[in-house]
Amino acid sequence: MHIYTKEEIAGWERFYRGNFINSVTGFKSVSLIGTSNENGQTNLGIFSSIVHIGSDPALVGYINRPRSAAPHTLANIESTGKYTINHIQPLFLNQAHQTSAKYPEDISEFEAVGLTIQYLNNFQAPFVGESVVKYALALQEVIPITANNTFLVIGKIEFIYLQKDILLPDGFINLHKAETISSNGIDSYYRTMPITRLAYAKPDNKK
Amino acid sequence: MHIYTKEEIAGWERFYRGNFINSVTGFKSVSLIGTSNENGQTNLGIFSSIVHIGSDPALVGYINRPRSAAPHTLANIESTGKYTINHIQPLFLNQAHQTSAKYPEDISEFEAVGLTIQYLNNFQAPFVGESVVKYALALQEVIPITANNTFLVIGKIEFIYLQKDILLPDGFINLHKAETISSNGIDSYYRTMPITRLAYAKPDNKK
Repeated sequence: MHIYTKEEIAGWERFYRGNFINSVTGFKSVSLIGTSNENGQTNLGIFSSIVHIGSDPALVGYINRPRSAAPHTLANIESTGKYTINHIQPLFLNQAHQTSAKYPEDISEFEAVGLTIQYLNNFQAPFVGESVVKYALALQEVIPITANNTFLVIGKIEFIYLQKDILLPDGFINLHKAETISSNGIDSYYRTMPITRLAYAKPDNKK
Repeated sequence: MHIYTKEEIAGWERFYRGNFINSVTGFKSVSLIGTSNENGQTNLGIFSSIVHIGSDPALVGYINRPRSAAPHTLANIESTGKYTINHIQPLFLNQAHQTSAKYPEDISEFEAVGLTIQYLNNFQAPFVGESVVKYALALQEVIPITANNTFLVIGKIEFIYLQKDILLPDGFINLHKAETISSNGIDSYYRTMPITRLAYAKPDNKK
């Protein structure tokens, strides 16, 4: 085992440090966020920082980078109040990753990378047609993180669209069966291998 | 494909809804957070909401449930300003999950579940001895999320402790080799299967 101190890390070359710090937090819930602006121009971006905030009400957060680095998704969410989160499956991973390129505002990443724009349930924001688990969000709150000018963007789930055959009798969604992928760092993607589901823990359970 | 609306979801039984909403956000970076109070009483809790906030400075966030539901970890972080995040490997998954039981404040989950308290580099908060990837944090900010009384807790990385043989030449940490697990829902755990690492995306890359 080796200790890497903050002083050592701060002295590293930028991309080396980015790879290191982006991977140390563990496997990530990478997804595609679909939006459109008020003129209906669609946008699609890959985000690896989706985080569960609460179940009742059903709230989901993600971290948006500073406005200067990642302007379109957040601007569209703020102007329309609506967005979609779409899981990524291996069949369209390359296209999903390619949405991280810096396209001009008037280019839709859907078209640029070759993913299908899909509208569901009269919801204003576009879904990814290829995705087999996806959900619609209404903006709840944009919380500025002053330490580095990022934002925690929180949305309320409006509806969820998935294959019925991945939903288990207790409400658990079998994302392994759906082939939803996870990511680590800025460029590494993974399938999953189930280990186990464990019983609700109580203090008197055996070790 | 089937649509589940917010009205339908709101009407479900609580545990069914919890399983559903906790699993729809994707695979999670589950880890153990180690703290101690001002008297040195240690505490260990499992959290599945670790999120990368930024690389320079190196900032990591996690979502803490309302104070009434999960008081000890947040209180210790606020009083000492220090905590540790410890990846979970399959060898001690059962013990890690068992820390989610509601033990009284004067019981250390380390002892209750049988995990080793480890102090490193003169850092005040305890690490999990069994974990092969772990890092120390100094509290940066506790941001209240008013929508459901949860908190985004942000820390600055002080140092990182890991096996040198999982660090690749470009700074990427091979968590698959480390056998770090991910989770989904409230009780399901996974190993990973690498798919690929993809090149930095530029607009003129081929589809």
